[in-house]
Amino acid sequence: MGQNFYKRDDRDVKFVLKEHLGVEQLLELEPYRGFTVEDFDMILDQAQKIAANDIAPSFQDGDRQGCSFDRGKVSTPESFKHAWRVFQEGSWFALAMKPDYGGQGLPLLVAEAAMEFFISANFSFGCFAGLGPGNGFMIENFGSQELRDLFCAKMYDGTWGGSMCLTEPSVGSDAHMVATKATPDGKYYKIQGTKIFITSGEHDLTENIVHLVIARIEGAPTGAKGVSLFVVPKIWVNEDGTLGEPNDVACIGIEHKMGLNGSATCVLNFGENGQCRAHLVGEAGKGLAYMFQMVNGARMAVGLESVAFGANIYANVLAYARERVQGTRFAMGGDRIRIVEHADIRRMLLNLKSLTEGMRALVYKTYLMEDLAKNCTDEDQKRKAKGRLELFTPLVKAYCSDRIFEMGRDGIQVLGGYGFTKEYPIEQYTRDCKIFSIWDGTNFIQSADLVGRKLNMGGGAVFRIWAEEVTAFIKDHEKDATFARELPILKEALETLVGLVLDYGRYFGEGKLDLIPLTSTRFLDCMSEVAIAHLLLEQGMIAQTRLEGGVAGPDADFYQGKVATVQYYCRNFLPQVFGRARIIKMEDLTAIQVAEAAL
Amino acid sequence: MGQNFYKRDDRDVKFVLKEHLGVEQLLELEPYRGFTVEDFDMILDQAQKIAANDIAPSFQDGDRQGCSFDRGKVSTPESFKHAWRVFQEGSWFALAMKPDYGGQGLPLLVAEAAMEFFISANFSFGCFAGLGPGNGFMIENFGSQELRDLFCAKMYDGTWGGSMCLTEPSVGSDAHMVATKATPDGKYYKIQGTKIFITSGEHDLTENIVHLVIARIEGAPTGAKGVSLFVVPKIWVNEDGTLGEPNDVACIGIEHKMGLNGSATCVLNFGENGQCRAHLVGEAGKGLAYMFQMVNGARMAVGLESVAFGANIYANVLAYARERVQGTRFAMGGDRIRIVEHADIRRMLLNLKSLTEGMRALVYKTYLMEDLAKNCTDEDQKRKAKGRLELFTPLVKAYCSDRIFEMGRDGIQVLGGYGFTKEYPIEQYTRDCKIFSIWDGTNFIQSADLVGRKLNMGGGAVFRIWAEEVTAFIKDHEKDATFARELPILKEALETLVGLVLDYGRYFGEGKLDLIPLTSTRFLDCMSEVAIAHLLLEQGMIAQTRLEGGVAGPDADFYQGKVATVQYYCRNFLPQVFGRARIIKMEDLTAIQVAEAAL
Repeated sequence: MGQNFYKRDDRDVKFVLKEHLGVEQLLELEPYRGFTVEDFDMILDQAQKIAANDIAPSFQDGDRQGCSFDRGKVSTPESFKHAWRVFQEGSWFALAMKPDYGGQGLPLLVAEAAMEFFISANFSFGCFAGLGPGNGFMIENFGSQELRDLFCAKMYDGTWGGSMCLTEPSVGSDAHMVATKATPDGKYYKIQGTKIFITSGEHDLTENIVHLVIARIEGAPTGAKGVSLFVVPKIWVNEDGTLGEPNDVACIGIEHKMGLNGSATCVLNFGENGQCRAHLVGEAGKGLAYMFQMVNGARMAVGLESVAFGANIYANVLAYARERVQGTRFAMGGDRIRIVEHADIRRMLLNLKSLTEGMRALVYKTYLMEDLAKNCTDEDQKRKAKGRLELFTPLVKAYCSDRIFEMGRDGIQVLGGYGFTKEYPIEQYTRDCKIFSIWDGTNFIQSADLVGRKLNMGGGAVFRIWAEEVTAFIKDHEKDATFARELPILKEALETLVGLVLDYGRYFGEGKLDLIPLTSTRFLDCMSEVAIAHLLLEQGMIAQTRLEGGVAGPDADFYQGKVATVQYYCRNFLPQVFGRARIIKMEDLTAIQVAEAAL
Repeated sequence: MGQNFYKRDDRDVKFVLKEHLGVEQLLELEPYRGFTVEDFDMILDQAQKIAANDIAPSFQDGDRQGCSFDRGKVSTPESFKHAWRVFQEGSWFALAMKPDYGGQGLPLLVAEAAMEFFISANFSFGCFAGLGPGNGFMIENFGSQELRDLFCAKMYDGTWGGSMCLTEPSVGSDAHMVATKATPDGKYYKIQGTKIFITSGEHDLTENIVHLVIARIEGAPTGAKGVSLFVVPKIWVNEDGTLGEPNDVACIGIEHKMGLNGSATCVLNFGENGQCRAHLVGEAGKGLAYMFQMVNGARMAVGLESVAFGANIYANVLAYARERVQGTRFAMGGDRIRIVEHADIRRMLLNLKSLTEGMRALVYKTYLMEDLAKNCTDEDQKRKAKGRLELFTPLVKAYCSDRIFEMGRDGIQVLGGYGFTKEYPIEQYTRDCKIFSIWDGTNFIQSADLVGRKLNMGGGAVFRIWAEEVTAFIKDHEKDATFARELPILKEALETLVGLVLDYGRYFGEGKLDLIPLTSTRFLDCMSEVAIAHLLLEQGMIAQTRLEGGVAGPDADFYQGKVATVQYYCRNFLPQVFGRARIIKMEDLTAIQVAEAAL
């Protein structure tokens, strides 16, 4: 087993859940009435322990041993198998699923908080562990009763795994262009086609893998409306639930990647011998609509993955900085000091801390919205939560995944030459995370979704309601002393952002359409920073109140750290909005106007 | 042998040398009178061919096979041995060294241009190839005639390699703290100590390796003045130049790294058995002063390495973008198009193109200054060139090395999921380059050197002369139509920069010393962008003149591309100065004020 690098704690997670977002409000929702906040605490404590003791030791194995491919079979490291058994014993696979098929029925917010610990410990393992229940949930939502009874329970308890088969060799971002064919065959369908970049498409952790495959039924219309979703078990499941014959699904190779080497990224051939049997899920022609529900979940998960990586990068880097002695105080000389005392190292540590906590605030707030959107009985609150969830999802996915790569860079830099070596985990996190900005819709696609669609939801009302909420917050706290420098920056940044939104309206009107894709990634970062600064300032107000109420020891440290973190983010990240806005407002079309031959 | 990814061309290199910087001016300097510009062209053409045909095939081998360590020996891939033979046959090792010991006597600017091609092809190979002649040059400059005669010729022709032994387990950035001891032993010294992170410290490419080792002579004063430089051959060299007994130098392991796996990063034990013999180089106590001459060369080289990586990343990404079909035109629909037609892809391509050309302008200009500083006969011009070289070196090292990692990120993003795989070279360049921001003085050290020392050289005159030159350029071109939008941005950016310099003076005065290390990395980026925008605009003016003079075909494409590239950089990178300046001017001390316990 590899070295255990799990050093992060859960203090900010619990602060966000209990003090900032008020997780107890979820106890009033029908599905969660059986829980108490103490239950949540206990579950999270247990998740931390398992993450630290049973999952984290597999982190390096995933990278060094990786997954290996031999004649159609994918082998995972031994430590993954141990982690899988522990996950099964503790029923950790389906925390947020309803109890009907063995789920734990937890609020999404709490389930994802537990996931944050597991992802910090070893995300490659998480890729295998997440897709079974994820697919089961799709079947539960969209499949027939027969399919549910056949598959869900075993996908929720880790007996069977899953994979999501969307991408094809010439079809990456154009999901509606699938070439994989489905031919009716009595009650079933026969599938023929090749899928690539299939995470967990083959492995040795479960006796069966239940693939969800996007394909076009013969004769279906072209485009998105001709696409359907199918269940394709690796080993056919008989009507009594027992395993039957192997299905005609072949893994013909795995990718060799920059990172996430513990996660098998497979090329799958369906129906090489014309014998690949499948169940249709739900209605024909609705495959993409169904799949995009899973994709939206995956986009949220990318944010969580980034937070989880950030938390453990920060903890490892901080521990190193507290021990490593190097250099003397800037321009002062004297004895050598620990690098945590150097201003430039502090700057990078605060980058890591404020981004981790800022991203967590954004991601957890959005998960709370998802819980409310699903389970609220107040229709107005439900609609508002749904809008906010949809508005924030592209921010969660793209802002967090772009930042985490930069955080890896800063983490490596703090460690100096050691950061470049495999003795420390930062370089692995940095390599592992590079896929986050690409998969589940590239970060450009997120920004185009934000500017082209989300800003206009409800005729712009969803965005406006959020902007008004931020404005009201600023107004409510205009006499606040602790954040007297930060609140005016937030106000100006929000005004700048609203100005950019008006400009986008003008671009549409004036036919300057190219300016949208040329600037949307920068806009997404601007909006994310305003949203995060707002949420962090909410947290800062709470921390300040606690400090004024009188706290001591680790709690005082935490709240003081929180106040500093909020100030740091507002002074060092939030003002980037102004620089970016100036660049956006240049309305520079050079990139698209230059002749291709001149590139 | 691995796949050959060498796709870059030499068009911009030749433009910078001949049209922008006027390499022919170097022919007037005494050491270069024997050359013609046609000679330079021929040498560069040949270097391109060798880079593409003989070096590039070893690029993947360096990463996949890497260097392996077994019982004290380091083995390199077979393709490295072929590349070494080709380098020896063509005498490519010591292009810029004087002919006395077999160097080619080329201007540094031309020699480094040739190196750019080799580094694009395989920098791991370049690490081995560069250190022999680099060490030889140190011996030529600082060693006795006896040492020169003994070592230089064989280090300039690739018979013997070299390594630079500075870092120790607890001594990274504190180079003056070395614990390695040197004890006088007749004519020689005996060395005892451990050195880590030693690039090319052991390998199988040469019959001998001549280490340059920093050590403290017993009884020498503490601090920098007690440090001396020694020649420690792996195999002792007899006075007649023949190889003697193996010296007491043991390689006890190599680092496992994020990248540059083809370059052996060694732990070396000197004098395990008390029998490690060494020659003192030059005067005792001057070791660090000598070494820092080499370190300055290495800092310049980091800039060149970044340019070389950028050029081939861009070429590979552009080739992919021209072929890959995906998506339809933004908000227009219709047929699927090649991704080079998408605005967001264009944005990333222009990021790569303008940064590569911008960094090259900065790096080559600075090498030209080094040539002039060394060989100019006009004392005033010489002093000015030396000042500019010293002022720009931290920009070359830090700005370029931070950008190249971001360029790797953008390159991977253009390729989507494929960018994350090892099928394409971008992920390897991205991993390989991560050490650039760390070695040869971290990028923070560069920025502290810039703000703490370089800005004040000559009482601020060196900076002022540069700023006046930029101002004069802007004034000279104030009626220019092609860059009418860009010149005012440059003017405002320069004024902003000068304002920051004045602020630094104030910080020193007001004792706000911590603000310097907290902001110096941002300042360095600001100054680099002003310097690059100025140089690019010089290039843009030349290109515009050529276009107005009437050109056709590939030349017209190149000059049009150049104009667009300059405009793009000035509109998309240069204005970052304003955003960063605003953040610097917040004078935020949070990072250093927060209690350590609150981190």
